[in-house]
Amino acid sequence: MYEGAVQDLIDELGRLPGVGPKSAQRIAFHLLAADPADVRRLVDALTEVKARVQFCSVCGNVAQEEMCRVCRDPRRSLAVICVVEEPKDVVAIERTREFRGRYHVLGGAINPIDNVGPDDLRIKELLGRLADGQVTEVILATDPNVEGEATATYLARLLVPLGLRVTRLASGLPVGGDLEYADEVTLGRAFEGRRQISA
Amino acid sequence: MYEGAVQDLIDELGRLPGVGPKSAQRIAFHLLAADPADVRRLVDALTEVKARVQFCSVCGNVAQEEMCRVCRDPRRSLAVICVVEEPKDVVAIERTREFRGRYHVLGGAINPIDNVGPDDLRIKELLGRLADGQVTEVILATDPNVEGEATATYLARLLVPLGLRVTRLASGLPVGGDLEYADEVTLGRAFEGRRQISA
Repeated sequence: MYEGAVQDLIDELGRLPGVGPKSAQRIAFHLLAADPADVRRLVDALTEVKARVQFCSVCGNVAQEEMCRVCRDPRRSLAVICVVEEPKDVVAIERTREFRGRYHVLGGAINPIDNVGPDDLRIKELLGRLADGQVTEVILATDPNVEGEATATYLARLLVPLGLRVTRLASGLPVGGDLEYADEVTLGRAFEGRRQISA
Repeated sequence: MYEGAVQDLIDELGRLPGVGPKSAQRIAFHLLAADPADVRRLVDALTEVKARVQFCSVCGNVAQEEMCRVCRDPRRSLAVICVVEEPKDVVAIERTREFRGRYHVLGGAINPIDNVGPDDLRIKELLGRLADGQVTEVILATDPNVEGEATATYLARLLVPLGLRVTRLASGLPVGGDLEYADEVTLGRAFEGRRQISA
């Protein structure tokens, strides 16, 4: 529809996740009219990310060196590994400042519809990290959805026989939420996991 | 939150129109895991667009040469100019294959809230194109919203005294739509613009 270069850019932008044809067109025209320096910065950021960012050789998180920031930090406990699906989950957990152990990024969750099986996840690497006996607890922090639960169940079956403490993040009502708007599964889990209040 | 290059990319993507922080993060991780050749193609498309695409010296449409495809085409009538807000409107009208004249892209619409006045639009350039008397009709095809209507009214006041035929695209019910879902302004316009059916 557009002349060469504009259409090429719209096509390339349209391949990005969550960017439909209309947004791709809108972004392309924004960039067309933008200051060349702004576009330069975007191009540089893209080039840099591909040139410098890699995946941590230990945990699979994004890293700017061979190992990620968490794995390089000697203050982080080697006794606890928190298993997550994606690097963005590491960021979410780091934000809580609650966890002082290490991570293991699976690179997804078991999902038969998208043809993702256990062999497509970094499970062998996880088992490798458990071999030296330093790890005493594995926290399964995959998403609380069907795929995440299936992955947690699969991992629990592998890990519990190894004599490790295997835990799963609590399900319950989101803080600041309204009880009446909670779905019944979440509310059911909140009942199941209720805690006694000490006076 | 993320290490250097990843955060830089998320920041740059988040500056694009319609891309919030969550989408920026999602796109960044998609690109991180993507084939380097795919990212290369996006980078090339961005670079190409800034290097090669310019705005047509006649009508203000996007162009890969000094003049755009429409203005270069000798088969297009010089007697009719269709005035639109943005290059994407040219594409929408071209798709109908109904119009065989030329375009004039204003680069926006009068919008006091965003501080866009008549002087910010390519109105002087439009008047320049009317000077030689070749143009007999100007079609005002700005958007049928408040800003587009204001712009059309402003232009009509300038152009009608020049003795030109000045027209505005018809408002009415969208084809394939439901009468009961039409808003009252559109339905009112559809009544106003009703046509007699010849038996």
